[in-house]
Amino acid sequence: MLVVMKSHATEEQIREACQKIESMGYRAHPIPGAQRTAIGITGNQTEVEPGTLEEMPGVQEVIRVSKPYKLVSRDIKEENTVITFAGTDASIGGRTLAVIAGPCAVENREQAFAVAERVHAAGAQFFRGGAYKPRTSPYSFQGMGEDGLRILAEIRDRFGLRIVTEAVDHETLDLVERYADVIQIGARNMQNFSLLKRAGRAKKPVLLKRGMSATLEEFLMAAEYIMSEGNYQVILCERGVRTFADHTRNTLDLSLIPAVQRLSHLPILVDPSHGTGKRNKVTPLSRAAVAVGADGLMIEVHNNPDRALSDGIQSIYPDQFDDLMRQIRQIAAVVDRYVPNPAQANQQSSVPAAARS
Amino acid sequence: MLVVMKSHATEEQIREACQKIESMGYRAHPIPGAQRTAIGITGNQTEVEPGTLEEMPGVQEVIRVSKPYKLVSRDIKEENTVITFAGTDASIGGRTLAVIAGPCAVENREQAFAVAERVHAAGAQFFRGGAYKPRTSPYSFQGMGEDGLRILAEIRDRFGLRIVTEAVDHETLDLVERYADVIQIGARNMQNFSLLKRAGRAKKPVLLKRGMSATLEEFLMAAEYIMSEGNYQVILCERGVRTFADHTRNTLDLSLIPAVQRLSHLPILVDPSHGTGKRNKVTPLSRAAVAVGADGLMIEVHNNPDRALSDGIQSIYPDQFDDLMRQIRQIAAVVDRYVPNPAQANQQSSVPAAARS
Amino acid sequence: MLVVMKSHATEEQIREACQKIESMGYRAHPIPGAQRTAIGITGNQTEVEPGTLEEMPGVQEVIRVSKPYKLVSRDIKEENTVITFAGTDASIGGRTLAVIAGPCAVENREQAFAVAERVHAAGAQFFRGGAYKPRTSPYSFQGMGEDGLRILAEIRDRFGLRIVTEAVDHETLDLVERYADVIQIGARNMQNFSLLKRAGRAKKPVLLKRGMSATLEEFLMAAEYIMSEGNYQVILCERGVRTFADHTRNTLDLSLIPAVQRLSHLPILVDPSHGTGKRNKVTPLSRAAVAVGADGLMIEVHNNPDRALSDGIQSIYPDQFDDLMRQIRQIAAVVDRYVPNPAQANQQSSVPAAARS
Amino acid sequence: MLVVMKSHATEEQIREACQKIESMGYRAHPIPGAQRTAIGITGNQTEVEPGTLEEMPGVQEVIRVSKPYKLVSRDIKEENTVITFAGTDASIGGRTLAVIAGPCAVENREQAFAVAERVHAAGAQFFRGGAYKPRTSPYSFQGMGEDGLRILAEIRDRFGLRIVTEAVDHETLDLVERYADVIQIGARNMQNFSLLKRAGRAKKPVLLKRGMSATLEEFLMAAEYIMSEGNYQVILCERGVRTFADHTRNTLDLSLIPAVQRLSHLPILVDPSHGTGKRNKVTPLSRAAVAVGADGLMIEVHNNPDRALSDGIQSIYPDQFDDLMRQIRQIAAVVDRYVPNPAQANQQSSVPAAARS
Repeated sequence: MLVVMKSHATEEQIREACQKIESMGYRAHPIPGAQRTAIGITGNQTEVEPGTLEEMPGVQEVIRVSKPYKLVSRDIKEENTVITFAGTDASIGGRTLAVIAGPCAVENREQAFAVAERVHAAGAQFFRGGAYKPRTSPYSFQGMGEDGLRILAEIRDRFGLRIVTEAVDHETLDLVERYADVIQIGARNMQNFSLLKRAGRAKKPVLLKRGMSATLEEFLMAAEYIMSEGNYQVILCERGVRTFADHTRNTLDLSLIPAVQRLSHLPILVDPSHGTGKRNKVTPLSRAAVAVGADGLMIEVHNNPDRALSDGIQSIYPDQFDDLMRQIRQIAAVVDRYVPNPAQANQQSSVPAAARS
Repeated sequence: MLVVMKSHATEEQIREACQKIESMGYRAHPIPGAQRTAIGITGNQTEVEPGTLEEMPGVQEVIRVSKPYKLVSRDIKEENTVITFAGTDASIGGRTLAVIAGPCAVENREQAFAVAERVHAAGAQFFRGGAYKPRTSPYSFQGMGEDGLRILAEIRDRFGLRIVTEAVDHETLDLVERYADVIQIGARNMQNFSLLKRAGRAKKPVLLKRGMSATLEEFLMAAEYIMSEGNYQVILCERGVRTFADHTRNTLDLSLIPAVQRLSHLPILVDPSHGTGKRNKVTPLSRAAVAVGADGLMIEVHNNPDRALSDGIQSIYPDQFDDLMRQIRQIAAVVDRYVPNPAQANQQSSVPAAARS
Repeated sequence: MLVVMKSHATEEQIREACQKIESMGYRAHPIPGAQRTAIGITGNQTEVEPGTLEEMPGVQEVIRVSKPYKLVSRDIKEENTVITFAGTDASIGGRTLAVIAGPCAVENREQAFAVAERVHAAGAQFFRGGAYKPRTSPYSFQGMGEDGLRILAEIRDRFGLRIVTEAVDHETLDLVERYADVIQIGARNMQNFSLLKRAGRAKKPVLLKRGMSATLEEFLMAAEYIMSEGNYQVILCERGVRTFADHTRNTLDLSLIPAVQRLSHLPILVDPSHGTGKRNKVTPLSRAAVAVGADGLMIEVHNNPDRALSDGIQSIYPDQFDDLMRQIRQIAAVVDRYVPNPAQANQQSSVPAAARS
Repeated sequence: MLVVMKSHATEEQIREACQKIESMGYRAHPIPGAQRTAIGITGNQTEVEPGTLEEMPGVQEVIRVSKPYKLVSRDIKEENTVITFAGTDASIGGRTLAVIAGPCAVENREQAFAVAERVHAAGAQFFRGGAYKPRTSPYSFQGMGEDGLRILAEIRDRFGLRIVTEAVDHETLDLVERYADVIQIGARNMQNFSLLKRAGRAKKPVLLKRGMSATLEEFLMAAEYIMSEGNYQVILCERGVRTFADHTRNTLDLSLIPAVQRLSHLPILVDPSHGTGKRNKVTPLSRAAVAVGADGLMIEVHNNPDRALSDGIQSIYPDQFDDLMRQIRQIAAVVDRYVPNPAQANQQSSVPAAARS
């Protein structure tokens, strides 16, 4: 259920509508928009009786939302959600393409810094690197844990890169929330609803990866779980789905990008590293992801992929990443997007005026 | 790595081999078999140097296990694992077919008792019913929580049924471990490795459902996660996988049963309720599951499916369950399995001598 | 569109209704049933105006069929279609389970006769063997062609087995129609509509295999293509679909059997040889197929699978086939089906009275 | 088996090597390259004995090709295959992006001409339009047949567009070969090996669409079937595969493009119309296809999609096609490709010097 306020509704009227909803035993989610405020109602296991709400001052209409998702929907918020990071130019969902790069796992300080230096120099604004790795085998490297998180925090201090790293349960989410800038929920946990709810109570943005066989609706519902707990800063990420095709590790489903953008205001990124599982496919699929209209990319880069403790086969070399950035910078321009170029930034401001809007 | 002891190796020699392995920084898992004891080695991120071990007294050979799973493998334990429940005839993995039946969710005491009475009368030895429900939508009924667990415990006391119910995170696993007889890990959490490890430290058997797009190897590796923490009482369950086919909600993959039985000593059940998602398919696919050689069935039964708070569309009526039990009893006989018949048990012992072995 | 005649409609009235339909530019398909005759109308690209037909003598009602298939549907014919073979006990779709067995390809006279002798002795009534093989590689053995068909015809003469063999285009269909008893259309040609139409003009029954990624509706529509040309003797066959699962070559979808039986009157068989692609899975999945309610099985048997020119890996040995027949004979009894037993037939008639109905 | 000739081998030596191969009972396929000629050997059901060939004058080496495909492989021909059309600038596989556009089916002269005029004006060099439509239902519009082919031929005469249209069996292939410039084999017939062989004897280029669940290897093997009969002018086309995902009709697998280009010298196009099945996804996925490196696009355009006799839901309007062409023209420039622009061509030659190479 969605309560749409009139465009000239007062703050007072909005607050009263929320109180009314809460008094009925539901939860109110006011979402301010450019034209008007909408209030999402959640917590209703049965139909909400719209009568009382429709007659309140400032209320324009009460919409019965037939789709199972509400807060993720463009029905509730027309404008794109843009996630910003205080004190930086970095953002996700705006005109500037968000580029997240780094190794699959933080293996040690030297490796992480070596990669960070290169991806920063090439123009990435975000650094990725797992401290907790969900591995298919219990006998595989499971990540450095909190030591890895400390290295990531140092990288932020040193290079100004925003940190994206995965949490795998409540305990690690507590730590990731403390050290990182964006909390990643991996594909294998996309329907770990307990973890989604915990992420919904976090104060940091959440990057949610699509499950290996998740439909669009299930993906959006997983985001809804996070938002229903009050955290509206959700970033979606397509990372390939499981099919019969065996020429790539997963099948990257780029048609999901326009499909998500039609239904939801949330930003959506593409991870061509996991999406293909093959180094030589990462750059062409990155170009395609930008061309299709994704809000950003998540790329695995390793200074020595052949010795990586995990997923080396899909990590690209720093030189390849430089080249990838050059290519997507050109594609981005065609689709009215912008990719920062540190090489030019030395002479001028890092974001052109047009891209700051 | 697997250390195979000689058939006449002494207890002392086995203990010494284990100590040696632990002193090398690994973890030893002695698995006694009918002929000989094998010791699984886990915790090795790199190859174990077999030399030292091979020369120890009582050691027959050291096998490099190429498959990524070890403890789940028939290489380490040839005989089928049979899980028994103290003080009862109930077992999983032996000649008696394990039948787990009950509603998708515990909705209230009356509903749960009504269903329990019927499935008990029809011959089920296990009762299922969710107290914590992983639902696609945050606005759907999420289960009764601990109140539901209490009702389940009462049902055990009243009918002697063993209780199978799902845990969705560390917190609920603590509670489920306390109240239930078998801890269920659902399909959506099959690769929630943090939860698997917690289940591996539980003192109760764990029923692990196959993920919606899990390969056989991933499924066995998930069981390996549980076993690698020391809990060897794992029960696998096929519940349908996600494909393009739309005449059923999932595609039940019965070929998985002989495939698992070839590679692993663990019991494997079939859940035709989730596996098809359609009431009218449950009985024919139950017959097929028994015929293919499954160790048991997990069936949703509801006294009023049309008003069920979750998954009513796939729950069968108690009368249909009676009929299903009659049919699988006959099929079971053909594949040398046994399904208890309470109707006859009034006159005699509930398990024939031949099935007690 | 479907014209349902009154139960006491005369032959004359049925003929007049058909003439009326044809005069309107459509095609009439009278389908006599036990209670009444129905007339399917095809060839209408737009809606048929029902008015004129409803007022004709002998017409009970005119039903707008919303499902895209008509002739395959139980709406038009409630009773199961049973396909019989003149001068023999063999049938498909009745109480007797149809067992079709033989090598993937006819390789030479000796091999074909050796296998035929064994499967006949074990109780199969139908012999399979490809003379034209659709192979993924143009450099693989493509079949013996008409020489293979001649060998098959000799096998019919020698053992009384009915012959099932594949046609791959118009030209080979002409030949197969001449030599064989059942014309097989393979999975790769399930949507070769030109071939389906040609099969629809054949005078022999057609065995249609499900395409590797065909939905139930597409499968039934392919059968509809055959029937729309006037050949109502269509036998469906599930042979596994393509999924991500890699423990079998295809994923055998047994839930399709009850799904087809609900919607269609056509018989449906199961091919566990292609459905699993693994010798050791054929027998358990055959048991499951009979238990789920299939009308028969199609099994690859080879006297020397390791040297087979095609698909040896999934062919079972004659001894394994003997065992398979023993097992399904017992399962069949449980689901009220009958499998002939030549070993007993020496003393008595090969089909018991009860199974002749 | 592949015979690689020395770079300075004479015509005479090549001819002699071919004669030798044929005299051994195989078939020789000389493939001239920029550096050297290679000769593919097909028709060998068992291993060819390389000894004799290796000692012939002009032969550099004899390579045992382990991959099942030979003629499609870059091993046999390193340079990209570029298909040209006599008397025109149109080509497929070169620097100029091939754009094939037109309605799903030719419905009548007016419709076909209206669409042709628009796509020609927007820069397409090829016109598509089905005269024979493989439809899931026998009751759907099946195409205009030869009348449709005549209309297509008129369109070539009027606008200079090259004609691409589908053949569905031997008979229609005879006709399509006569009227069209490129013979299309549809997804449903990708493993109709009889039709592939017939196409391999045609004198016109063949556009082969990927089957709905074809692996990369199966797709290349289907092309191999055509080439093994002597027709080396094969164009591949990705058109989406069947998966569980339901937000698009098929899942467009863009990673196939770099995968094909790595293994094969054949050009590969993308059909985002069938690949997504949704009008609003065609333009973004067209951009992505060009960005990933496809050699061209195949797009459904209809002047009145809502009244189209087939697949209207995925056809775009002529105005949308104009916009699509503008967008891909810009993307093409980034990946060093060229899209002709008739609007500019009035002032100058239609292909810039750089693109003529």
